[in-house]
Amino acid sequence: MAEFELIADIRRRCGIAPPVTIGIGDDAAVLQHTAATTEVVTTDMLMEGVDFLVDEVAPELIGRKCLAVNLSDIAAMGAKPTAAFVSVALPIALGRPFADRFFAGLLDYAAAESVTIAGGDTNTWRGPLVCSITLLGEPVGGRPVLRAGAQPGDWLCVTGACGGSLAGRHLTFTPRLQEVAELVQRVTVRSMLDISDGLAADLHHLLKESGVGAIVDAAAIPIHADVALLPPIKTPLQRALSDGEDFELLFTIAAEDGPGLLQSWRHATPITRIGVITSSKGCWLQTATGQEPLLPLGWTHALDGSHGDGAR
Amino acid sequence: MAEFELIADIRRRCGIAPPVTIGIGDDAAVLQHTAATTEVVTTDMLMEGVDFLVDEVAPELIGRKCLAVNLSDIAAMGAKPTAAFVSVALPIALGRPFADRFFAGLLDYAAAESVTIAGGDTNTWRGPLVCSITLLGEPVGGRPVLRAGAQPGDWLCVTGACGGSLAGRHLTFTPRLQEVAELVQRVTVRSMLDISDGLAADLHHLLKESGVGAIVDAAAIPIHADVALLPPIKTPLQRALSDGEDFELLFTIAAEDGPGLLQSWRHATPITRIGVITSSKGCWLQTATGQEPLLPLGWTHALDGSHGDGAR
Repeated sequence: MAEFELIADIRRRCGIAPPVTIGIGDDAAVLQHTAATTEVVTTDMLMEGVDFLVDEVAPELIGRKCLAVNLSDIAAMGAKPTAAFVSVALPIALGRPFADRFFAGLLDYAAAESVTIAGGDTNTWRGPLVCSITLLGEPVGGRPVLRAGAQPGDWLCVTGACGGSLAGRHLTFTPRLQEVAELVQRVTVRSMLDISDGLAADLHHLLKESGVGAIVDAAAIPIHADVALLPPIKTPLQRALSDGEDFELLFTIAAEDGPGLLQSWRHATPITRIGVITSSKGCWLQTATGQEPLLPLGWTHALDGSHGDGAR
Repeated sequence: MAEFELIADIRRRCGIAPPVTIGIGDDAAVLQHTAATTEVVTTDMLMEGVDFLVDEVAPELIGRKCLAVNLSDIAAMGAKPTAAFVSVALPIALGRPFADRFFAGLLDYAAAESVTIAGGDTNTWRGPLVCSITLLGEPVGGRPVLRAGAQPGDWLCVTGACGGSLAGRHLTFTPRLQEVAELVQRVTVRSMLDISDGLAADLHHLLKESGVGAIVDAAAIPIHADVALLPPIKTPLQRALSDGEDFELLFTIAAEDGPGLLQSWRHATPITRIGVITSSKGCWLQTATGQEPLLPLGWTHALDGSHGDGAR
């Protein structure tokens, strides 16, 4: 079953109406309740055997990840989280001790990020663990940042470093909420998403929604040290471009805002300029030997290969 | 694993903070964005083998039910729905034809109820079908109706008739959105919930949240004709009290509002007075031979027995 086709079909069938102003296709939906009240809403469902392995991962980290992937989507909208709704199907066989540790990880992290757990649906069953969280938030700078909005000449930037997350970082990553709060207050972020499918694939999503192209400088891409922890079946650069679950922010800003932002950026998480937005719609990788097409290298999930996300 | 204990533990751990004003424990959470902007949010996760059987039910009806249970929660808040977020884990083995029919049932019903599908997360996997929907709404009468709010002397009323839903009605029921829109505009509904666990069990939820008791008139309880379709292992009255998944509204109104409402109620779905709220906290069933305690007869789910709901 081709998930992306199914999602595209669903998206075509679903119109939007007030209070919804942005529906399927961004990191979160946008609801405009009044001129002054804007809400962003995202949802992610994580499944045993696809997004985590219950035999190999501490239950607390599973609970934490279920919230963290949603926090990353809220950050990608230039927003801060407010309230979460947590639905779970807990395997009866794992028992109450597992459930307690799962929720401890989730609730502790929610408290640390000032997220109110406002509701949910707690079930037990004989099937595998499934957790679906819907997270609400509000734009830090008043208006949300969308995937659409990149303009020719924009600098293409990324937070942190990419690749190798499956060595463990996909369970412990820090959503870039603090970084985004500072970012949107300092410059106009024209377009943004978080990297879940992989830098190359997610860049294609941003370009498609914005109706533009890009040239990416291969030498500029920040490669995470974690790539060394994984088998050398891909080069470090390939990993940075395609591993996925980095949960870094990929965004564009006006070229005139670029130098000032990068020179004065003091946050521990670096921001790196990795390319430029072009009016022609191709996506190119600039290497020492020339330009080659940068394909939306499909992120093949290491555990299952069947993961997709309707909000992406 | 005792779900209700787990849910109670989670609820104790979760405080509320603005914009959330009502959190875990009602049919939906309430968010007060501004004095004039109130939002209600509910979520329900339905699982194969627990809430439906994929081998015996048309996929369209499964998709419909996943939305309908959430619509019923929104109705129970005295609200109307606005936007839904749909997360699914689709079994690969059921293939694209199943997915198309599932979504057709869900999206057609959403369109019919003017619900915008604003986002979601569409996954495939080797596990069973799971669908989690988060539904947003806004109070019809400006303020939401809570479970807490029943006062001694209130009439206890129910829409429609109860019992026997597992003969098929649990898949085809109509959430009482139209009825509630008329109800809240005609009287002050002091407390309300929808009957999912069963009339007796849900009445206990309402009484507990309101800090009151009730006397229920056994002869007044409207028993659905569907009870005749199920095995006579329970009496019709027992089925009406405990079968669950009726998705009727159980609510209280001031006694002085009662006669006028019932005499002038012209909607096809009847409203029946089935009892009275008392200041003493007991819950009693008045029969021809006297009063007996009305226990929160646990709704044992016919398919699995393991279903619970954190939002209830």
